[in-house]
Amino acid sequence: MESDSKGGSGQEELRENGYGSGVVLGLDGGATSTVCVCLPMIPLLRDQLSLPDPLPVLSRAVAGCSNYNSVGENAAKATLEQVISDALTESGSDRSAVHAVCLGVSGVNHPTDQEMILNWLREIFPSHVKIYVQNDAVAALASGTMGKLHGCVLVSGTGSIAYGFSKDGKEARAAGGGPILGDWGSGYGIAAQALTAVIRAYDGRGSPTMLTNRILKALGLSSPEEIIGWTYADRSWARIAALVPEVVSCADAGDQIAHDILVDAVKELGIAVKAVVERLCLCGEDRSGSFPVVMVGGVLESNKGWDIGKEVVNYIQKLYPGAHPIRPKVEPAIGAALLACNFLMNEKNINNHG
Amino acid sequence: MESDSKGGSGQEELRENGYGSGVVLGLDGGATSTVCVCLPMIPLLRDQLSLPDPLPVLSRAVAGCSNYNSVGENAAKATLEQVISDALTESGSDRSAVHAVCLGVSGVNHPTDQEMILNWLREIFPSHVKIYVQNDAVAALASGTMGKLHGCVLVSGTGSIAYGFSKDGKEARAAGGGPILGDWGSGYGIAAQALTAVIRAYDGRGSPTMLTNRILKALGLSSPEEIIGWTYADRSWARIAALVPEVVSCADAGDQIAHDILVDAVKELGIAVKAVVERLCLCGEDRSGSFPVVMVGGVLESNKGWDIGKEVVNYIQKLYPGAHPIRPKVEPAIGAALLACNFLMNEKNINNHG
Repeated sequence: MESDSKGGSGQEELRENGYGSGVVLGLDGGATSTVCVCLPMIPLLRDQLSLPDPLPVLSRAVAGCSNYNSVGENAAKATLEQVISDALTESGSDRSAVHAVCLGVSGVNHPTDQEMILNWLREIFPSHVKIYVQNDAVAALASGTMGKLHGCVLVSGTGSIAYGFSKDGKEARAAGGGPILGDWGSGYGIAAQALTAVIRAYDGRGSPTMLTNRILKALGLSSPEEIIGWTYADRSWARIAALVPEVVSCADAGDQIAHDILVDAVKELGIAVKAVVERLCLCGEDRSGSFPVVMVGGVLESNKGWDIGKEVVNYIQKLYPGAHPIRPKVEPAIGAALLACNFLMNEKNINNHG
Repeated sequence: MESDSKGGSGQEELRENGYGSGVVLGLDGGATSTVCVCLPMIPLLRDQLSLPDPLPVLSRAVAGCSNYNSVGENAAKATLEQVISDALTESGSDRSAVHAVCLGVSGVNHPTDQEMILNWLREIFPSHVKIYVQNDAVAALASGTMGKLHGCVLVSGTGSIAYGFSKDGKEARAAGGGPILGDWGSGYGIAAQALTAVIRAYDGRGSPTMLTNRILKALGLSSPEEIIGWTYADRSWARIAALVPEVVSCADAGDQIAHDILVDAVKELGIAVKAVVERLCLCGEDRSGSFPVVMVGGVLESNKGWDIGKEVVNYIQKLYPGAHPIRPKVEPAIGAALLACNFLMNEKNINNHG
């Protein structure tokens, strides 16, 4: 590493906040938007997390979707470049001040996906910058554990996924395959089942349900048969997932079909967490070991009556009494930035002791 | 009607086959292709179907998909024009010889869909030509009943639908809402559940299944996690439905998960027929009345061991002993052409007696 570089460690000028001029970037590339935050390089020590509160966030920028499965490679790449440039400009920094970048992005399901996105980011930054690309669930986990990769995260927004890390660095995931591959605990899954229930009630395959009037009103349609055309008109899964509050509201009002859909969703989400916990032995030999379960996403956020997140926690704690739920106080992009600090510190430790 | 028109009835020159020069067109617009057949105008008498065997088919043309939900309105319209033009040219006729056209097309779920497609066809033909647009399931029904609209048809190919008519002309449908709206008995539904089972076995949510090796081999993939990218790479439902034979083959080989998926599919298809039969009272007051159930589509065609179509017939006949299954000997486009004859005769009868 060049000792005279602004991005180098050690002898640099201190900012007003007491940190050096070196920064890290955390990015969260979700289904509908991409967030980039810029933090000063915060020294994190493994298992000794004494982070400043509040965190000294230097800047935050937002852009559109950067999931290349949804928008294509060129648009995804352009969106990442833009949001990084905006965040750096707003923070008063530039690319040469960046020590590390961590991007948590949906659509990373395979090492080849990861490598492709790594290459995009390598084109943007000087070669000494450390770049990490992770599934967006990993950034979500870090947002609950403040940068520590241990425990399990459950995300249920438009899609759903469970992702976990053991203390010795093994990782595992469950679900997160998207709409075709049966993520029935996701917002999309819940709402698609509700739409199906409306069609079944209409054509005689199913029982009448309050969902019919509630969903037709929400969509501005006059008959259930119009729902078919509506589903074909736009292939965005998010606009289907947006119907979850209607399902919760019908379940609150005592509708059995809506209730059953939510019970199914809770079970599906619970099974996904269970699969990760078992594969990583997070609960230890006696199954009562303590581990965090970070809960993220609109579906899991507290609702008035029927609280999906609370029911999922009950499901998990019946199996694993030591599971302790965390609802993150910071956003996933911050989680990604803390991960960037952590990864960098670990690499330095390995280099120092190696 | 102009008496000197070639399309007029009565005094026209007879062809070698003994019919007049007037023709009807039958079109079947399915998920993957569009078929148009040209038949001479065959006089059909209500309830006295004594059709020539074989039918005097003058020509047959094939083009691509004409479902506007899949390919857009312009492409759908262009495809219909092309296939009609090809069929007429091959038959040695032209548009002026056409008495009636019947199009059975997927994606007709609402009167506004029907009206839009009617308008496309009205632009192609002279104003005296009678034009009928129906859901493709109606043409499939007519292909089993040789033009008579009575009974129930069950279609399960890429999608699935049950559609029926009572003797007094009432109609009802069930399912057919497409992939988002839970047509679990369709080829898409069966295969999507099989793909989901592979992911669940891989991530620990489900039990191991033979489907894993069989499907990975069929798709040329090396790991279940590659399936996620595969589902995103191309949004054609038909290529997912193409995996049904793998599911049948695993069920034949004793795989419990594949077996359960097929049992579910049989139940879903049976429930769709039941909904139509009940709404139209096809089985009469004592539930033993006789009515045809026309079985159409790749999923229902005879398989070596596990025969989905046979299981569905068993399911239906347990409920309705008078249900008699028909496997059509002619294709849906012929059904549409016979419907065109039938509709035209009915209109003439109404006009003569009206």
